[in-house]
Amino acid sequence: MADSISIVLLGTGNLASHLFQALQKALGVRVVQVYGRHRKGFAVFGNQVATTTDYKELLDADLYLIAVSDDAIQSVSQHFTGKRGLVAHTSGGVPMSALKTHRKGVFYPLQSFTAGRPLDFSGVPICLESERKADLALLEKVGQAISKLVYPISSEQRKSLHLAAVFANNFSNYLYSIAEKICWEHQLDFELLVPLIAETANKIRFLSPKEAQTGPARRQDTSTLKAHLELLGDPGDKAIYKRISQAIATTYGKKL
Amino acid sequence: MADSISIVLLGTGNLASHLFQALQKALGVRVVQVYGRHRKGFAVFGNQVATTTDYKELLDADLYLIAVSDDAIQSVSQHFTGKRGLVAHTSGGVPMSALKTHRKGVFYPLQSFTAGRPLDFSGVPICLESERKADLALLEKVGQAISKLVYPISSEQRKSLHLAAVFANNFSNYLYSIAEKICWEHQLDFELLVPLIAETANKIRFLSPKEAQTGPARRQDTSTLKAHLELLGDPGDKAIYKRISQAIATTYGKKL
Repeated sequence: MADSISIVLLGTGNLASHLFQALQKALGVRVVQVYGRHRKGFAVFGNQVATTTDYKELLDADLYLIAVSDDAIQSVSQHFTGKRGLVAHTSGGVPMSALKTHRKGVFYPLQSFTAGRPLDFSGVPICLESERKADLALLEKVGQAISKLVYPISSEQRKSLHLAAVFANNFSNYLYSIAEKICWEHQLDFELLVPLIAETANKIRFLSPKEAQTGPARRQDTSTLKAHLELLGDPGDKAIYKRISQAIATTYGKKL
Repeated sequence: MADSISIVLLGTGNLASHLFQALQKALGVRVVQVYGRHRKGFAVFGNQVATTTDYKELLDADLYLIAVSDDAIQSVSQHFTGKRGLVAHTSGGVPMSALKTHRKGVFYPLQSFTAGRPLDFSGVPICLESERKADLALLEKVGQAISKLVYPISSEQRKSLHLAAVFANNFSNYLYSIAEKICWEHQLDFELLVPLIAETANKIRFLSPKEAQTGPARRQDTSTLKAHLELLGDPGDKAIYKRISQAIATTYGKKL
């Protein structure tokens, strides 16, 4: 324990609780305190760790991990005057410079976390950034304690990675929800699409999505495209169908 | 063997070869012949089955499975005069009525098949349709021989299911390819996004995508939306980003 890296975790949300679970189980690191705005946020941590709602009570630690909403990061970062430890935020969308601290870093786990659903952190890519080499080494140790996938990524790169993640995660999920709605409207069980969705996601492990593209837009099947557009009731869904079909046609050198 | 269901498979493409592999291994069914337009198409079947390129040589069988491209189904279906067997196509996008045969049916495996990649058919939903009860029972026997998931689905429903599959599979894959392009452009390994994509697809097994929706559009984070649009170079990608973000904002009751 003497040589383990001490960590104070700031935040009580989804990411904070998942990070806490992973760090608690890991060797070489220990969470010594959790900070939250309200005591009720501490429920998910049980009695496993010291907690505080007062910045003045923050313990000294090697690392302060800020796992709060993006727009609160900067203001939270103003409470580390006199603290020697490294302060890192955990966001994909916020530059490191948002931190108003002496030593700064980023510890961004690239994954979608769901409340109450345990997640194996060992397969979650952790994207790291710091101003100083020694700080990066510290973040690497913490990253490697919970994951096999640890990458140094600049703020500039992380911005693009976050954008890519919006397409791959948020937008894909929205397409799933359109598919789900179409199923409901026609008395079809959405379960029918689960194996297809799983295979589509799995395929990218061995085939580039650029090469894996199929479907009516790719093969310029205008009669199917027309039939689908007639079938779609919601103007928003129709617009998305048109827009993506046009993009596919353009990408693969065909005009619709 | 005497009581097994005899099947002639028409087609030598991706779906035909996957179906063949699955049917070969199954009990209670046997593929007695494969029809193809050209002999070179038979290479994937090895010497495991009788083959022909001549409709006049089609054997008598209990079931003829047409696994050819959508626009060829109708013309292929005109070659069964004098045959007593049930003729079924395997397409999601074509109504049963496209078949110009006495007995007609549909045997639609709802999955994305990749050449050379073996697939466990037992988890592939098979959507069945026929005009007569006895024919449906035959298709059910064949379906159950290769899969645990067998559903009767009408032509009307199948049309909607196919549309839903375009969103869930083709369009999701296109979003993956945009994400991949963004990674390439910023010297990021696309591998970084693989765990996220897997988790997003996996999550729908226990959480409706409608409920699982997250991201800047859902939480009305206009500064991130603006930054992302500035970051996107390709006008097509930008248009898709805008369109889906607006749809998410509308769906979740917020205006961007």
